[in-house]
Amino acid sequence: MPHVNPAEVAKRLLIGRRLRSTQLGETLLPKRIALPVFASDALSSVAYAPDEILLTLSLAGLVAYGYSWKIAILVAVVMLVVVASYRQNVHAYPSGGGDYEVATTNLGSNAGLTVASALMVDYVLTVAVSISSGVQNAKSVFPFIDGHEAWIGALAALILMALNLRGVRESGAVFAIPVYCFMVGIIGMVVYGLFRILVLGDEVQAHSAQYGIEADPKYAAFTGFAMVALLARAFSSGSAALTGVEAISNGVPAFRKPKSKNAATTLLLLGTIAVTMLIGVITLANLTGLKLIDAPYSHYTLNGQRVDVVEETAIGQLSRAIFSDFTPGFYFVVAATMLILFLAANTAFNGFPVLGSILARDGYLPRQLHTRGDRLAYSNGIITLAVLAIILIIAFRADVTALIQLYVVGVFVSFTVSQLGMLRHWTRLLKTETKPAVRARMKRSRVINGTGLTMTGTVLVIVLLSKFTQGAYIAIIAMAALFVLMKSIRRHYDRVSAETALVEGDDRTLPSRVRAVVLVSKLHKPTARAVAFAKASRPSVLEALTVAVDPEETDRLVGLWNETGIDIPLKVIASPYRDVTGPILDYVKNLRKDSPRDVVTVYIPEYVVGHWWEQILHNQSALRLKARLLFTPGVMVTSVPYLLQSSGKAEERLARDDRRSRRRRSYLGS
Amino acid sequence: MPHVNPAEVAKRLLIGRRLRSTQLGETLLPKRIALPVFASDALSSVAYAPDEILLTLSLAGLVAYGYSWKIAILVAVVMLVVVASYRQNVHAYPSGGGDYEVATTNLGSNAGLTVASALMVDYVLTVAVSISSGVQNAKSVFPFIDGHEAWIGALAALILMALNLRGVRESGAVFAIPVYCFMVGIIGMVVYGLFRILVLGDEVQAHSAQYGIEADPKYAAFTGFAMVALLARAFSSGSAALTGVEAISNGVPAFRKPKSKNAATTLLLLGTIAVTMLIGVITLANLTGLKLIDAPYSHYTLNGQRVDVVEETAIGQLSRAIFSDFTPGFYFVVAATMLILFLAANTAFNGFPVLGSILARDGYLPRQLHTRGDRLAYSNGIITLAVLAIILIIAFRADVTALIQLYVVGVFVSFTVSQLGMLRHWTRLLKTETKPAVRARMKRSRVINGTGLTMTGTVLVIVLLSKFTQGAYIAIIAMAALFVLMKSIRRHYDRVSAETALVEGDDRTLPSRVRAVVLVSKLHKPTARAVAFAKASRPSVLEALTVAVDPEETDRLVGLWNETGIDIPLKVIASPYRDVTGPILDYVKNLRKDSPRDVVTVYIPEYVVGHWWEQILHNQSALRLKARLLFTPGVMVTSVPYLLQSSGKAEERLARDDRRSRRRRSYLGS
Repeated sequence: MPHVNPAEVAKRLLIGRRLRSTQLGETLLPKRIALPVFASDALSSVAYAPDEILLTLSLAGLVAYGYSWKIAILVAVVMLVVVASYRQNVHAYPSGGGDYEVATTNLGSNAGLTVASALMVDYVLTVAVSISSGVQNAKSVFPFIDGHEAWIGALAALILMALNLRGVRESGAVFAIPVYCFMVGIIGMVVYGLFRILVLGDEVQAHSAQYGIEADPKYAAFTGFAMVALLARAFSSGSAALTGVEAISNGVPAFRKPKSKNAATTLLLLGTIAVTMLIGVITLANLTGLKLIDAPYSHYTLNGQRVDVVEETAIGQLSRAIFSDFTPGFYFVVAATMLILFLAANTAFNGFPVLGSILARDGYLPRQLHTRGDRLAYSNGIITLAVLAIILIIAFRADVTALIQLYVVGVFVSFTVSQLGMLRHWTRLLKTETKPAVRARMKRSRVINGTGLTMTGTVLVIVLLSKFTQGAYIAIIAMAALFVLMKSIRRHYDRVSAETALVEGDDRTLPSRVRAVVLVSKLHKPTARAVAFAKASRPSVLEALTVAVDPEETDRLVGLWNETGIDIPLKVIASPYRDVTGPILDYVKNLRKDSPRDVVTVYIPEYVVGHWWEQILHNQSALRLKARLLFTPGVMVTSVPYLLQSSGKAEERLARDDRRSRRRRSYLGS
Repeated sequence: MPHVNPAEVAKRLLIGRRLRSTQLGETLLPKRIALPVFASDALSSVAYAPDEILLTLSLAGLVAYGYSWKIAILVAVVMLVVVASYRQNVHAYPSGGGDYEVATTNLGSNAGLTVASALMVDYVLTVAVSISSGVQNAKSVFPFIDGHEAWIGALAALILMALNLRGVRESGAVFAIPVYCFMVGIIGMVVYGLFRILVLGDEVQAHSAQYGIEADPKYAAFTGFAMVALLARAFSSGSAALTGVEAISNGVPAFRKPKSKNAATTLLLLGTIAVTMLIGVITLANLTGLKLIDAPYSHYTLNGQRVDVVEETAIGQLSRAIFSDFTPGFYFVVAATMLILFLAANTAFNGFPVLGSILARDGYLPRQLHTRGDRLAYSNGIITLAVLAIILIIAFRADVTALIQLYVVGVFVSFTVSQLGMLRHWTRLLKTETKPAVRARMKRSRVINGTGLTMTGTVLVIVLLSKFTQGAYIAIIAMAALFVLMKSIRRHYDRVSAETALVEGDDRTLPSRVRAVVLVSKLHKPTARAVAFAKASRPSVLEALTVAVDPEETDRLVGLWNETGIDIPLKVIASPYRDVTGPILDYVKNLRKDSPRDVVTVYIPEYVVGHWWEQILHNQSALRLKARLLFTPGVMVTSVPYLLQSSGKAEERLARDDRRSRRRRSYLGS
């Protein structure tokens, strides 16, 4: 390509090379590429989960910080159990249906719909939380962001929306780079930090180590119920680390063979890495005296006085302290963190329309969302997602801590229902299975999924109890509303389906004759073409019809009609009030009344134009008339297009859009 | 009617009885009804013109007040000359075409379009100025309005919009009452005031008589150029009294025979009454020591100190002072003033769409505005007018003085161009006319119109010079923009018209055969009907076509198709990317390529539903496909409707809307 578009170049640098449509479906992922493709969401949560644990504990002051590593280990245990559980899902459902399929198949449509509602809400929150966290991390490098987080977050969401609307999709390799950078960055930082502190004996102190913490008076007495409640909250927030783990179970078909085995291995790898990074960060935080506060409830203090400090994320503070002797390391870690968080947000832009398409296939969302190639439907999903995320980002001022309260509920609803479904799955299979070896394997899987269910169910209850009033209720309301909406849509489709079903013994006699009416407003090429086409269809009766809106114009038209020698009669109907629609409707209705066994075809000449503003200047009466004619039983409406010169440009534009939308493919293969 | 709707009752009280559609066109107006019907706009300007004269003069302090009656007389003279001129228009153009017709016929389309732009802008300003003045007058009775004028004015405009959208039109008799009340009120006040002051010798003092006036420093030296400029401005503002005089020339067809003569007489009557009221109010203002200031440039003073006074309009102050011994008189005058001002605003809601319809007929505005019965087009006009007026009211905070600066330009552009047209009209007729008596009459008319042209042209120049920087430039820009827009629309229509004109020697051979394709997504009643209708049309080739979006669904469909025994073949086309539109487009294009002399008819089964939200759930793919198919040459698209049960309600609603829109008639007969 000799012509290089700078915007194109910038886009490629940001998001990666475009995927040719021929590549689709053919490309299967090796594990080393599949890991980063499906892991960005799960791994990126390591960027905010430790922060949430620490700042929640800060509400009780420094005394509570001792619990931080215990909570981290608890989260890690849950993570490993969930990973083990999903390894069973991957084996049982290699089709990649994900939690929605597992729940629907095993527990019925209501359970499936519950999972779907939870996932839809979570996609919105993934975008909001990831972008907000990305902006918070960016503050380490660009301190001037402080105070403008919400608007910068909204801008980032808009940019993601625009990129996705233009149909850009990341290719695996480009996707892989920032994910591996993030892994290398965080693990490198942990290793180097531990080396400096434990081996070299360096005094590595986080910037916030110098401060004390003034607890929230509510939690100052860190005993009894208050202590349990706070630890539960910290654990719930830390559980945000688990978001995104289920992504691999949706993507099994994209793996190289043996698909299920490779996917299961990748899941284990992902879990191990995530746990390592989480524990590593929390350990470093403890060793460097890192402190985070939950403004405005707890406060930093210096010499017993409250101080106002621009907060930096845990990763920002740690990398700054650990790489104090090697600044490029600091920039590398912060940049990789920012990048993986935006990638995580981007995966939601991919997943949301895919889930929407599956729900549309099942009749829970408007049907047209199912046809993926459809640019408009796809765009609507992207815009909806971006708008909702922007509303959240602005309403919560890009405050990760506030957004996290809404986030974790959906994930655990989906985990829990899915594990319950898996339990049913194994129980059902066990009823018919007879081979002892297979039965033993199934029973083992059932135990694992049962453990997963117990664990995720318990966490769900903890999350609900500790976060409901903090904001989780908003997520619950959104899920319930979505559930009801999707139920109603399905009910509507079912009703229509019943109404339109072919029934044995339906009257199948053909209409006896076709009466054709060509609507005429002027005598010009579009009219002449409509007449020619109508004639070619050889109806039983054919007549032209015009409404006398303006007597002079009508006289001219009749004169011209006779002169031109068109051999079908032109009927003129009166319209005392210059109304076009009414008289035509009446005329057509009377035609039908006179011979109810006939079909009436109304031919409408239509201009096809190239610009939306031209559309305003043409066809408006025709369009409205058409809409009304469709309400008249036994009437067909035939549009006879006449292409104006300007329509050529529009055709090109539409064809270009088609090509672009065919290009919208991802490795998810859907 | 046993059932009485309270909103209905309130509406009738406000605006008057609904006009049955049978009354239309048959009712011709006697002069005593025609006067109030056409005069509300012209007479209502007496409510603000005297104020504008006085408060403009206040800029130079009390010394300038001595000029107020001279300016009033000058305005009255111009008024009478304009009335005399329009009496000639009425005789020459009994068709009621108004200034737009006069200018177009005699001076060409650009002149006509200039007038039309001026009139459109003026309709908006009529609403804004009348409502603002109504609100200012209402302050006399409801002083709490002070400080909230803009919002109350916007609310009033919204109410007028709502009433007009619901299709309420005033009947002549109900229209007449407030107009006659206003005439009786103002003339009664003048007579009673003069009687008290001159005969009884009462000391009748306006409230503001006690104050002094602190002049604007810019005009404090009331000499030389500054004096001339200020007097010119006061005169220009006072010329607002002339707005609305041209209304009768639009309404000639509505008069009883002899139409032109009756219309001319009514015009004279209108002029006389308006002049009497104007001079009367100014005289009383002088006698009662009434003062008005142009805040914040001039100020009231008391004992040499600036004082802050809630301003009251001239009519408010005068009626309060004169009816100090008879309070009902005060309330009567203020109420009648408020009412006539809202009626004047309401006439614009009637005139704006009518002018729009005429311009649409001539191709300067979208064609569909021409068909008056069309509810949507009519509603768009009403909403556009209301929104623009509300923007003006809020932007200028319902300040009549500020709005008047924009107002008068348009009126005088229209007057001047129209009079120039009349001059041409007589000159043209005189070229062929031979009868001496008729020639003498024509020459007399020409002199009158020539005088009118000189006078209105001079005033236009004065207005432009004295007001351009005060705000008139906004009106000029708006007119110019409108002019360019309408020109472009016309040019577009002309281009399309040339492109589509039938040319001698066009290929008129009929397409040889019709190939019909029925699009199938499911096998249900709508599809069965589409197949039956397509069969009834007996095309040369008929086939059904489906796109394999989902392999399972397609298999089911094919099985069912064969089972049901539909005797046309079902073709299945592949769609690797779940796209529906693309494969169908390709298929249809290939059909055309194979046999370019044939016509292709695509039958699309369509659901007809009752609610907009149902529309979202159905037909979306069909609609988009249809739009794309129309871009393919040689293809007709036939919609075969299937009416769902819910469509019944929508049919009823649409029919009701039709009835309502037919009811939208006024005495203007258009």
